[in-house]
Amino acid sequence: MKHAVTYELIKTDTRTKARRGRVNTPHGSIETPVFMPVGTAATVKAMKPEDVEKMGAQIILSNTYHLYLRPGHEIVKQAGGLHKFMNWNQAILTDSGGFQVFSLGDLRKITEEGVNFRSHIDGSSHMLSPEKSIEIQNDLGADIIMAFDECAPYPADRDYVEKSLERTTRWLERCKDAHKNTSEQSLFGIMQGGMYQDLRLESAKGIVALDLPGYAIGGLSVGEPKPLMYEVLDYSVDYLPENKPRYLMGVGSPDCLFEGVERGIDMFDCVLPTRIARNGAAMTSHGKVAIKNAKHEKDFSPLDDECDCYTCKNYSRAYLRHLFKSNEILSSMLLTEHNLHFLVKMMEKIRTSIEEDRFLEYKKEFYDKYGKF
Amino acid sequence: MKHAVTYELIKTDTRTKARRGRVNTPHGSIETPVFMPVGTAATVKAMKPEDVEKMGAQIILSNTYHLYLRPGHEIVKQAGGLHKFMNWNQAILTDSGGFQVFSLGDLRKITEEGVNFRSHIDGSSHMLSPEKSIEIQNDLGADIIMAFDECAPYPADRDYVEKSLERTTRWLERCKDAHKNTSEQSLFGIMQGGMYQDLRLESAKGIVALDLPGYAIGGLSVGEPKPLMYEVLDYSVDYLPENKPRYLMGVGSPDCLFEGVERGIDMFDCVLPTRIARNGAAMTSHGKVAIKNAKHEKDFSPLDDECDCYTCKNYSRAYLRHLFKSNEILSSMLLTEHNLHFLVKMMEKIRTSIEEDRFLEYKKEFYDKYGKF
Repeated sequence: MKHAVTYELIKTDTRTKARRGRVNTPHGSIETPVFMPVGTAATVKAMKPEDVEKMGAQIILSNTYHLYLRPGHEIVKQAGGLHKFMNWNQAILTDSGGFQVFSLGDLRKITEEGVNFRSHIDGSSHMLSPEKSIEIQNDLGADIIMAFDECAPYPADRDYVEKSLERTTRWLERCKDAHKNTSEQSLFGIMQGGMYQDLRLESAKGIVALDLPGYAIGGLSVGEPKPLMYEVLDYSVDYLPENKPRYLMGVGSPDCLFEGVERGIDMFDCVLPTRIARNGAAMTSHGKVAIKNAKHEKDFSPLDDECDCYTCKNYSRAYLRHLFKSNEILSSMLLTEHNLHFLVKMMEKIRTSIEEDRFLEYKKEFYDKYGKF
Repeated sequence: MKHAVTYELIKTDTRTKARRGRVNTPHGSIETPVFMPVGTAATVKAMKPEDVEKMGAQIILSNTYHLYLRPGHEIVKQAGGLHKFMNWNQAILTDSGGFQVFSLGDLRKITEEGVNFRSHIDGSSHMLSPEKSIEIQNDLGADIIMAFDECAPYPADRDYVEKSLERTTRWLERCKDAHKNTSEQSLFGIMQGGMYQDLRLESAKGIVALDLPGYAIGGLSVGEPKPLMYEVLDYSVDYLPENKPRYLMGVGSPDCLFEGVERGIDMFDCVLPTRIARNGAAMTSHGKVAIKNAKHEKDFSPLDDECDCYTCKNYSRAYLRHLFKSNEILSSMLLTEHNLHFLVKMMEKIRTSIEEDRFLEYKKEFYDKYGKF
């Protein structure tokens, strides 16, 4: 079967599982490994889409749960789809809404059919199922759409995780059947299985059998210690096909990106860079900076002396601190632009380092300079 | 005496007092009549300065009171002045802080020396006087700095207004004496006198005698009915010299701009376009739009079909409504950009209409289309 989204493997690192590849979509190609900025409500918060594109971002993620509730997928469809609605002409990936509805706690109830839940906005009742999630995602029109799965919490006992992953695999079959727009959108499956190696294998077998154009690793970065996440990644990646992109969901701190790439991950997304920006925190070549700190009051140097983003080229730490303390919107705008630029450029350097067979050297350089993560 | 800021009169309308001119400053020339966007805390809220410049804004206003309290004028001075601190390379005008401290009500006390007040941020005690205001404004380094005056409230009895304007004139002499940086910054005087014609004349005589490079009309748009404001403007402008720019403070609704221009005003400023943008209101060729209204839910047309701003070229009303209802920062960004662009372009058209001797015709066209103000 011909998929709307395809993967080319360009080069594999000689010493690690890191790989340089390309994901081709109806809205352009994505050089991998890639970090995908999150635009939850059809906007990367505090950014004009043209500025997200200018810095080199190739794909963004948007959230089905949020867009379903507001403005509603029918409106996005009538607008001509998400790309046109939000003025973003490159690739988009939508999640399934599964993670959000499962996070609602007491406000949701799971059955084999799907999940009944109440809106966090107005308390109204809704049902999200594999079919409904795919219907919504077909209306939104992202290039890559995600399976409706359950992301098991951490810690969770084996029995729960096993039943959950088996249902997730059954739901994936229903997602695949429900997907109506295969010529323009590609459905990715999601591996679950918690922190249990045999369950990860069981999950992988079930989803790989469906021959989807890409696979995600879900259920990580949910509160487990980082070494445990890396251990699960070590074997999980091996259970996935080499000729398909591998997407590690919800991960975005620099160390996790390096460790994920080293273990063979191609795609990442996380709200971290945009969220911490609005709270006055920046990632820089020399580690994290909390801009409100008094030591920046009279610091007229840029946020990051090695960065060539709009913020670092034009503004001082003293000005950024002033904006943050004054609750100015420009504070969120400038710090968001910097943080996204930082991760996008870091991923570019990671890609180059793989091409030049010096990924581990670049990783060491980065870690030495960044300090504590 | 050679002033840092000079005025050229280019053309006067044959049927009204409207005039086309140019204000030359150390940071470029300003074509007048001009609307000046407000950047209270060294940022035009929700805008990158480069986007303010791109739309054709030639000068912005910043507030001495706010910058004195945060981050402090010494820090702005150490940063190399306000232009460099905020990355704005065109002209800047700073107000004196007078209007803000007088607005503090119970938190301030007026004497001949100046005004004692408490900070709205942390309650700390401060004193603003003519000398202190000019010292701060010299440190900020704006091209045009304003006299420290009292803006009398409306209504106010004649006796109060008379005493107040006389003190304002005495304070102006102290401002002029205190002004240390005349080669790079020009001090404008402010006419007061409330709604009393003879007091306006008295005020004008006092301030014009000091031969300053420009004069503002203060004490209007303070709650009085618009017809009364226009009546005061009618005679007040005649009391000011023809060879100096005339600045009407705190006025920014389209009708007030047209009426002000018609009466011979050259410069205007107001927070209106930026403030209402953050509340979801837009000025358009066909009148005001409240973007949250349900009728825009499925309206995929631009905010203003005659506007070529970034917002109108790229986004629909449906998307803007979605952003506003979702409390997204991009809502403030896009509506602010549109509103400022709208007023900047309106002023451009006003200037052209004066050049082509059809100001009254353009005014009528605009009013007919705009509808209710």
